[in-house]
Amino acid sequence: MTVRIGVIGAGWIGREHIRRLTGTVTGTRVTAVTDIDRSRAAEAAAPVGARVAADGAELIASDDVDAVLVTSWGPTHAEHVLNAITAGKPVFCEKPLATTVEDCLRITEAETANGRRLVQVGFMRRYDAGYRQMKQVIDSGAIGEPLVVHCAHRNPTVPESYTSDMAALDTAVHEVDVLRWLLDDEIVSAQVVTPRSTRKRFAHLRDPQIMLFETAKGVRIDLEVFVNCQYGYDIQCETVGEEGLVRLPDPASPAVRTAAAHSTRVPTDWVGRFADAFDTEFREWVARVAAGAEPTGPSAWDGYAATAITRATVTSLQEDRTVATDIRPRPAFYGGAA
Amino acid sequence: MTVRIGVIGAGWIGREHIRRLTGTVTGTRVTAVTDIDRSRAAEAAAPVGARVAADGAELIASDDVDAVLVTSWGPTHAEHVLNAITAGKPVFCEKPLATTVEDCLRITEAETANGRRLVQVGFMRRYDAGYRQMKQVIDSGAIGEPLVVHCAHRNPTVPESYTSDMAALDTAVHEVDVLRWLLDDEIVSAQVVTPRSTRKRFAHLRDPQIMLFETAKGVRIDLEVFVNCQYGYDIQCETVGEEGLVRLPDPASPAVRTAAAHSTRVPTDWVGRFADAFDTEFREWVARVAAGAEPTGPSAWDGYAATAITRATVTSLQEDRTVATDIRPRPAFYGGAA
Amino acid sequence: MTVRIGVIGAGWIGREHIRRLTGTVTGTRVTAVTDIDRSRAAEAAAPVGARVAADGAELIASDDVDAVLVTSWGPTHAEHVLNAITAGKPVFCEKPLATTVEDCLRITEAETANGRRLVQVGFMRRYDAGYRQMKQVIDSGAIGEPLVVHCAHRNPTVPESYTSDMAALDTAVHEVDVLRWLLDDEIVSAQVVTPRSTRKRFAHLRDPQIMLFETAKGVRIDLEVFVNCQYGYDIQCETVGEEGLVRLPDPASPAVRTAAAHSTRVPTDWVGRFADAFDTEFREWVARVAAGAEPTGPSAWDGYAATAITRATVTSLQEDRTVATDIRPRPAFYGGAA
Amino acid sequence: MTVRIGVIGAGWIGREHIRRLTGTVTGTRVTAVTDIDRSRAAEAAAPVGARVAADGAELIASDDVDAVLVTSWGPTHAEHVLNAITAGKPVFCEKPLATTVEDCLRITEAETANGRRLVQVGFMRRYDAGYRQMKQVIDSGAIGEPLVVHCAHRNPTVPESYTSDMAALDTAVHEVDVLRWLLDDEIVSAQVVTPRSTRKRFAHLRDPQIMLFETAKGVRIDLEVFVNCQYGYDIQCETVGEEGLVRLPDPASPAVRTAAAHSTRVPTDWVGRFADAFDTEFREWVARVAAGAEPTGPSAWDGYAATAITRATVTSLQEDRTVATDIRPRPAFYGGAA
Repeated sequence: MTVRIGVIGAGWIGREHIRRLTGTVTGTRVTAVTDIDRSRAAEAAAPVGARVAADGAELIASDDVDAVLVTSWGPTHAEHVLNAITAGKPVFCEKPLATTVEDCLRITEAETANGRRLVQVGFMRRYDAGYRQMKQVIDSGAIGEPLVVHCAHRNPTVPESYTSDMAALDTAVHEVDVLRWLLDDEIVSAQVVTPRSTRKRFAHLRDPQIMLFETAKGVRIDLEVFVNCQYGYDIQCETVGEEGLVRLPDPASPAVRTAAAHSTRVPTDWVGRFADAFDTEFREWVARVAAGAEPTGPSAWDGYAATAITRATVTSLQEDRTVATDIRPRPAFYGGAA
Repeated sequence: MTVRIGVIGAGWIGREHIRRLTGTVTGTRVTAVTDIDRSRAAEAAAPVGARVAADGAELIASDDVDAVLVTSWGPTHAEHVLNAITAGKPVFCEKPLATTVEDCLRITEAETANGRRLVQVGFMRRYDAGYRQMKQVIDSGAIGEPLVVHCAHRNPTVPESYTSDMAALDTAVHEVDVLRWLLDDEIVSAQVVTPRSTRKRFAHLRDPQIMLFETAKGVRIDLEVFVNCQYGYDIQCETVGEEGLVRLPDPASPAVRTAAAHSTRVPTDWVGRFADAFDTEFREWVARVAAGAEPTGPSAWDGYAATAITRATVTSLQEDRTVATDIRPRPAFYGGAA
Repeated sequence: MTVRIGVIGAGWIGREHIRRLTGTVTGTRVTAVTDIDRSRAAEAAAPVGARVAADGAELIASDDVDAVLVTSWGPTHAEHVLNAITAGKPVFCEKPLATTVEDCLRITEAETANGRRLVQVGFMRRYDAGYRQMKQVIDSGAIGEPLVVHCAHRNPTVPESYTSDMAALDTAVHEVDVLRWLLDDEIVSAQVVTPRSTRKRFAHLRDPQIMLFETAKGVRIDLEVFVNCQYGYDIQCETVGEEGLVRLPDPASPAVRTAAAHSTRVPTDWVGRFADAFDTEFREWVARVAAGAEPTGPSAWDGYAATAITRATVTSLQEDRTVATDIRPRPAFYGGAA
Repeated sequence: MTVRIGVIGAGWIGREHIRRLTGTVTGTRVTAVTDIDRSRAAEAAAPVGARVAADGAELIASDDVDAVLVTSWGPTHAEHVLNAITAGKPVFCEKPLATTVEDCLRITEAETANGRRLVQVGFMRRYDAGYRQMKQVIDSGAIGEPLVVHCAHRNPTVPESYTSDMAALDTAVHEVDVLRWLLDDEIVSAQVVTPRSTRKRFAHLRDPQIMLFETAKGVRIDLEVFVNCQYGYDIQCETVGEEGLVRLPDPASPAVRTAAAHSTRVPTDWVGRFADAFDTEFREWVARVAAGAEPTGPSAWDGYAATAITRATVTSLQEDRTVATDIRPRPAFYGGAA
């Protein structure tokens, strides 16, 4: 069975996902595309033989759409996801699930009321081979119980439109999700400490930032977010346990020896760094949809937690204090204890 | 346009390729399968909705086959490839192209007479990301003109049926192809030197073997083939040029620190090591077929050279002397000087 | 000229230094040894032909002692160092310079009044080849201005007598000194965050601890101190600057590939890890003493700062708040601005 | 007891060793220096308070010399070493022991007749920490019985006076000695294969050269000697055994990430690469001499074998054939079976 997908949002990431769903992932077709800018939707739809839908609601409702992909502007996510839940259709929503904690909770409540998991949130790190191998090592018990995690998320540079709160909301959000999954634990507080800022970029921006998280089990995480590090796109993660540690691998690259140096390449963008993770993410999602099964990826609950935690992190940055994330108890519907 | 593929040979590698062509590569369908063992063909065909063809000739001739994949027993390759050329259909032939130099030349002559490239040989190393990056480094001039290449091809173990000549014919053949491509050069002689053999395996087997190759441009290659090295599947390649060197990366793997050791994983089989290379190999081949274009992968000429070189290597092993490969001048049809 | 050294304190570290000064470092002799336990002094003195001095005061005053090495119990350091200053003799004092901030300041005041630098404190990290290379990289400007430093100080295990405040006073003190030197900057505040403690060791101990330091220039440092990490003695340091980063090398060790793993050794004790640093430390100190020159190593001021900073760190651990280190302005005598 | 050393040969390496024996190694003094150029001897002697001896014979005979260091021109080594044996004094001879096989044998015979080991040859690789760790790994049985060794010896560049036979005699001689020691095995044949030569250096020179050695136990060694590799001084060694492999570590160096590259330094000269090995070599030799014990380092027999093997290698280069080394059976005096 070919899964027919309708795509809401034909910006850069939307077009990238359309390309992936049609050219790289098997068993799927993009049948409808919509965008607030209709001509942009048309441009994205034409090469793959999809039609342009009037709007998200029409697209979600139509018979030629089995599953929905939401890649529109963040503040519109909640509406589309809620519509998809109402329509009973699987929906893959790019992060964030919603830009407010309240909207996230409306979604988890709607999905719970619906009684069946339909929502997957686009946190692709869980599909990266390196993180998966790390999780296997942790889950195997080889390093004992995790106690500390050291992370870094570095980008070569960001545009002027990037603001200090985006360090948590747009950048650290990936670590927030992947660490919750890696540790099978919840983040209960956040604190931001700010080194002097790099002079290589805009004066308005606090960059780098060190984010400190504490989990329910007492694990301490430090995460350096540095989005104008100049030298490359560099993702580091080291989990220290009671008996050892495990470190995320750097991407493989040939070693060159010239001019008294031994060197390997550092990636310069996330597209290349996580290309395989995106492929795997969609392959596994499409396979679940095709099988009529619930998704196994990041859930609406994970989307809610990520928004709550990154919002608390922004508050810490703004108010210079440790902020509790106040994540609610996880309902049984989402695998919680109760 | 979906490329409809007929598969000749439903053994392990045939079924693996069928899985890949239907589950991983987009734009293709397997429509027909044949095998000397009809029930094996049926088992392979059923899950992907293909029919069982009577034999290779019928499969090649039939209208529901746009392109042919040959994964049958080596000695049968030549016949199927020649039939495909006669039928004017693209054919992807697993290595070897043919088991004798004479058959290889019959194929190159038939293809030349036909006037259009139809044959691609399944040397997947050219599609491995690491080798491709190495080639970019070499072609960029960063290490200067290549002078020496050091290689190792190690397998954990082989079955008793593996014989000493297979070290060249089945194992080193991959390096032979990838080195000719990497260096854009021809191998003109081969010499095998034999260390004492490992006692970990069968007495009949010379293992390891050190193969020494010389190229037309004067590059010297040493290749350790060690198919019972016990510890893992390990592929090493280092090209030394006039100004530096470049080394094939090991596959990325998390580093673990426990018990006074820092360690990463070494793969234990080639399936995992080159899985991405196989995917890319077929993706690129299918895309060329779909576009009605000639293949860009290893040609029938490359298949001929690989057979001639590995045969010379076996002669060297048997007669304990340096053996000329006697590769013919490359015809213009295959990109030669004229 | 042979430098004649008197050693105060013949415990394990004292005997280790005597061995080093007589067997590894040229141009020096140990002529006198004293210890609160006279028989221990005698045991240490005999093999190197030194005499046993009655006590520190006698040793410092005697004509056969050109320079003094203090390796006695921490609380006695101040008295011996002050005596040496009064006697106008060079004194090498193992860390800490003194156990209270007040005693440290008494020493710096005495030395300043004396008008000549006589004191060197035994922070050997500054003599480690890796840290020295790191400093060269930083000072070269290759990574731009430092913004963030990530460190880890891990020991396999500690005895039951090790208490939670020793994580700062005895362990982190090495990083405190080397970071001040590496960054040419002062630490102005300290904050300790405590992950759940490992269950592999005594219940009374907070282990690991994450120490956060801020410098006068606004650099943020995070230091994981984990003294029961089980797997090895592991010192990590990564300095992130405006244009790149530099990472302390791990000690060189052969790579072994067996059983599907590629592995190198992690040291298991600091003696081996910093043996060369100790040698270099004493070689350079002895060379300065022999030349009648002031020492170039860690000064009394550095000893004062280390004590003040680690005391503030202990306060943070005890009171769970960020604590200012209240380091005084550096006097001109110690290279300060005023 | 201080060992009083007389140095024959005050060229660059002689002065370097004098510096080491007086400034780095304890328990020794240089008391006499001689050189064919008397003013050069005087220059070397003055700073360490040594006298200038008339010639080698006088130096060896004189009462103020306990042990002799020979660092003169290669062809003069044999005479000085034989004189020292006659005088019954320990002699450390820089490589080569002698430039002809015959002279080497005269030395081993004289030493045997003398009945006591007096000679040590200056092969410092055996004292390098990395090689020693490799040997521990091999001797531990962790990789099983050795079967194959891959080596490279690369220098950035050599002067015009360097000739093609020096690749074996001066350069590969270090690997020849260290491999015999590492494997506890004898080299029985040598073959040189010559890649096209680099154009970065003089037309008269065959560079690089690949040397192939076979040992008595059947181990096969390939050694790339490339003395104008441009990029650095790079020593590689990998021993492959029946169950795994061990690889010589690269020198530790901080990793730097800038401009999309992760890089470490490659040394550019052997002085820095093996400085610690030279120190250890002399420390252990002086300790043996001081104790009145026979040396434990490379013996006259090892010196003989190295000359015989490298001479055979030169013959292979000149005559383009595999050449037997014809090493005699090792006498019991040198630890042999008979």
